[in-house]
Amino acid sequence: MEARSLAEAFASFEETWEPRVLAELNDQQVKVARLDGEFVWHAHEDADELFYVVDGDLTIEYRDDDREDAVHLGPGDLTVAPAGVEHRPVAHEETKVVLFEPAGTKNTGDADDSERTVEELERL
Amino acid sequence: MEARSLAEAFASFEETWEPRVLAELNDQQVKVARLDGEFVWHAHEDADELFYVVDGDLTIEYRDDDREDAVHLGPGDLTVAPAGVEHRPVAHEETKVVLFEPAGTKNTGDADDSERTVEELERL
Repeated sequence: MEARSLAEAFASFEETWEPRVLAELNDQQVKVARLDGEFVWHAHEDADELFYVVDGDLTIEYRDDDREDAVHLGPGDLTVAPAGVEHRPVAHEETKVVLFEPAGTKNTGDADDSERTVEELERL
Repeated sequence: MEARSLAEAFASFEETWEPRVLAELNDQQVKVARLDGEFVWHAHEDADELFYVVDGDLTIEYRDDDREDAVHLGPGDLTVAPAGVEHRPVAHEETKVVLFEPAGTKNTGDADDSERTVEELERL
């Protein structure tokens, strides 16, 4: 049992698009990440994904056969990207986010051969 | 898909020790609660429980056969109370927390007949 500080977690790395694992519970993981710019379109077939913005300016874009949609998040806002729905995070400035999702969820989901894929996440 | 604001969530109620459900994902729930003073000792047999302090001053006390322990949390700090471990949140001032735990986790866990038990959680 220990306390983990979000501020210390973010101070420990500078890389963008490389989530770190901060805590685990109930087969889920709490991750912290710095985002900047556009990510790749992807979906997680079996995993809902929570985004919580600590600091910054983030849009989660969605698309499916019928329509496009977007959710805008500022500091203190959260949203859930549902399993199976194609989405793309777009950070309009460097943005600090907390992610919550099942352990083992890949950052790029079903996107093929993305340079953005991080296979082994560092644990803080 | 929608954005939820923590500030708006906390502005929507004043009651202490009555968690509200803010979001659900992967059979887990994100709850917000105001805590003040000492809660009851309890454990959740099958559920780890995450506490994230948005604002305030919180100690999670632990006890088992061998020892006592305590984790102190200020704003921006989080901790995980492991399943099956008896614990008691103590808020030294009114404290806003985000809880993350499996859907259906009872706030008072295995504590008998607690007046603090909330059977039906309000959804925000």
